[in-house]
Amino acid sequence: MPTLFHHPMSSSSRFVRLILSEYGFPVELIEEQPWEKRREFLALNPAATLPVYVDDSMRALCGPAVLMEFLDETHGVLKRERRLFAEDPFQRAEIRRLTEWFLAKMEQDVTRPLVRERVYKLQMTAAQGGGAPDSKALRTARSNIRQHMKYLSWLAGSRPWLAGDRLTYADLAAAACISVLDYLGEIDWAETPIAKEWYQRLKSRPSFRPLLAERVRGLTPVSHYADLDF
Amino acid sequence: MPTLFHHPMSSSSRFVRLILSEYGFPVELIEEQPWEKRREFLALNPAATLPVYVDDSMRALCGPAVLMEFLDETHGVLKRERRLFAEDPFQRAEIRRLTEWFLAKMEQDVTRPLVRERVYKLQMTAAQGGGAPDSKALRTARSNIRQHMKYLSWLAGSRPWLAGDRLTYADLAAAACISVLDYLGEIDWAETPIAKEWYQRLKSRPSFRPLLAERVRGLTPVSHYADLDF
Repeated sequence: MPTLFHHPMSSSSRFVRLILSEYGFPVELIEEQPWEKRREFLALNPAATLPVYVDDSMRALCGPAVLMEFLDETHGVLKRERRLFAEDPFQRAEIRRLTEWFLAKMEQDVTRPLVRERVYKLQMTAAQGGGAPDSKALRTARSNIRQHMKYLSWLAGSRPWLAGDRLTYADLAAAACISVLDYLGEIDWAETPIAKEWYQRLKSRPSFRPLLAERVRGLTPVSHYADLDF
Repeated sequence: MPTLFHHPMSSSSRFVRLILSEYGFPVELIEEQPWEKRREFLALNPAATLPVYVDDSMRALCGPAVLMEFLDETHGVLKRERRLFAEDPFQRAEIRRLTEWFLAKMEQDVTRPLVRERVYKLQMTAAQGGGAPDSKALRTARSNIRQHMKYLSWLAGSRPWLAGDRLTYADLAAAACISVLDYLGEIDWAETPIAKEWYQRLKSRPSFRPLLAERVRGLTPVSHYADLDF
């Protein structure tokens, strides 16, 4: 069975797990602490990013952008109306733009600093950079959330799904990212009813169940995290 | 004619210009100063990244990853042996991985800080963050170059082209990035003969000529910059 190296608080790992689950494609999950930079892991992915997918012939595929394209080329094209990508090149471009928005831009502005300060630093040794969260980094990331949630609400309010008429990678990327922030209690749902309605739809999909059941050591999720009606 | 918003010292802009030129696809170039965050530019690309391609129907496509896929889907597939992408999904994954390596990882470790400190800050006002380069940022970026050039040499030494048997997006991405650093005189070619031989091949392609002829205001390139035999 193929293997996926992931971290439960990595948006990109969650994104790829959602794709695999939507396509009914089983993988063995191995939790990787990316800050450890294990030699064996770097041999698979010199960029040290997550997730990394290793197929049965030990070929490694690294990162969400590479994996979403690969999974579309090898599986998505056969799925007809369940395909998570579009056929039209302009629609494909929009799906890619939004996926990158949530997994690169929102990641950089919000998710990466919050996860680093609030999750990774708890598990890191002092030599690895562990310790108390940097309150300035937290403040900056939190002040960026509002703008990103506004954009998400705008997208969710103007289209049935984020990139158009059907569920695509763009929804899974955004939901992966939001689910990490929601675990950490960083999202004020009262402020964003439109985004909330969209996230409720995503959260209710069977592909989401394993993510909602998962717990990070030493870090309890916000009380509504696994509620479908929050 | 379609338009490409670019900056002469942006690796990703150079990468897309090389693709368009290899495919003989004319565009009108408009130089954009990304730090200005012009309202009209943000309307085209809320992420404010370069390059942005605007087609004749005023549809905007943003960033190198989206554009390379779009140009392959709409042009590359017709180019047979001149196609800059592969057919096999694993080879495609490797081309995407390397393109991301040079335009995201090397960009973050080396190119973005050097260009910001040495080029953009010269043109920025004080309010935009302009001024003297930060010597610590320069030092960190420069110490990262060596490791990246080692990896490039390893790739160039173990395969005819960076991603395999033929010229692909991976070569254009690496060459775009290297050409920016070479303009700034940041590459010690005596140290990396294998990478040099590979870069000579790239530099000699007609698609490279416009890049070698271009000059940034107030910044003279290193003396060998446009020499094909450097």
